[in-house]
Amino acid sequence: MSLKNEKIYLYGKNALREALVARPKILKRVFLDKNAKADTELLGLLSVNTVTVLDMKERALRDVGASAVHQGVIAEISTEALYTPLEEVLSSSNASPRQCFVLLDELQDPHNVGAIIRSAAAFGVDAVLLPEHNQAPITAVVIKTSAGMVFRIPIVKIGNVNQTLRLLKEKRFWVYGLAMGGDTMLHNATFDTLVVFVIGNEGEGIREKTLELCDITLSIPMDPKCESLNASVAASVVLYEYKTKTAGL
Amino acid sequence: MSLKNEKIYLYGKNALREALVARPKILKRVFLDKNAKADTELLGLLSVNTVTVLDMKERALRDVGASAVHQGVIAEISTEALYTPLEEVLSSSNASPRQCFVLLDELQDPHNVGAIIRSAAAFGVDAVLLPEHNQAPITAVVIKTSAGMVFRIPIVKIGNVNQTLRLLKEKRFWVYGLAMGGDTMLHNATFDTLVVFVIGNEGEGIREKTLELCDITLSIPMDPKCESLNASVAASVVLYEYKTKTAGL
Repeated sequence: MSLKNEKIYLYGKNALREALVARPKILKRVFLDKNAKADTELLGLLSVNTVTVLDMKERALRDVGASAVHQGVIAEISTEALYTPLEEVLSSSNASPRQCFVLLDELQDPHNVGAIIRSAAAFGVDAVLLPEHNQAPITAVVIKTSAGMVFRIPIVKIGNVNQTLRLLKEKRFWVYGLAMGGDTMLHNATFDTLVVFVIGNEGEGIREKTLELCDITLSIPMDPKCESLNASVAASVVLYEYKTKTAGL
Repeated sequence: MSLKNEKIYLYGKNALREALVARPKILKRVFLDKNAKADTELLGLLSVNTVTVLDMKERALRDVGASAVHQGVIAEISTEALYTPLEEVLSSSNASPRQCFVLLDELQDPHNVGAIIRSAAAFGVDAVLLPEHNQAPITAVVIKTSAGMVFRIPIVKIGNVNQTLRLLKEKRFWVYGLAMGGDTMLHNATFDTLVVFVIGNEGEGIREKTLELCDITLSIPMDPKCESLNASVAASVVLYEYKTKTAGL
């Protein structure tokens, strides 16, 4: 789907505060209603960051939808300014010798994308890689579901998934795919190197050509009566196991 | 919220199939559109179970909402027939000496409730306990998010949470609460007895009086930049740890 002409919003005081503290450059302009304008702390933060503040607009209210708990606060953002280039993440001076990435391979549900970004931040992942095509992009729902973590962890937009994985393999990353019937049970997995976890589409899983690039495929032990877990739950369980095994806990 | 006069629906072919196979008694009547009526396998299953089949109704379509992927299949269900009494679960002849329950303490988001039920089924939990009040009840969204697992795992409706926990403690259950700043790190926890996991409300966590009834409070190791996980993710990570520690893996 093309988002070229679509405005991307965030809404709610917490989400705006998170953006102001962590990534003020993504904010294009902020719409506040009368009540929100009485929040002097928020106004102070906006003023320090020289963000344009406007009266609440019908268009913005309509775009975020009636069910959005916006608290009179809607901001138009530039997701382009949100993305970090892959080279920058790889060469970052505080890159650990145990860098860990999560790559989303055509996930469709923005709730899953947001929840995975939140878990990635919680379990110390260094960046989340999102393909440009056939992948739910960063939207207001993703931002909300990520509990603002989308501003705290580098998000990298990538082109071709398989090309990116080949590049990472050259840089000594091991590719771990989370797959039904994967050959390594998660609790037996070891993580002794640079790691990229590939999370597949909710219905189809990881595509075949991508699966071939995986050095290790992981499966999660499950009761026979249940075929699969929610994609964000499965990804989070993997990241929890990674965190406990690598943090010297 | 009272649901006395509200009709509860499920929708989609998979959800209906799951209900027909595992819990046909909950089905009150099924609405099918023309295309769905051409599905002979589905019609066969409905006929075997003597379920009333009607033409699709505007009212049912309106009630499930425009965004529901119903595939021309909507069923009106009785959630009362879905619940299993606590005594039955406790005295079940195939009750293991290591019974494990999950108790939801005032969760509000039906997506979380559904995802936790799905994970509970996946990780071999024996029953999910839902309080009657201030707790998101079983709805079409819960059924959908649970991937039909709401029909595969006993769901128990309970009255007072603290009374239920006291009863379970008398029956030698240990109460594990999942709480911010819990005193036992999850990966250090042991599970040598009957277990009930208490999952608290998304914003507030477990209520104080309930927390006092917990024998052990668990916390999940997390990066300082992220304060908390999504409630269904946190619950699922706990159940994964429980499963790997108790299944002799």
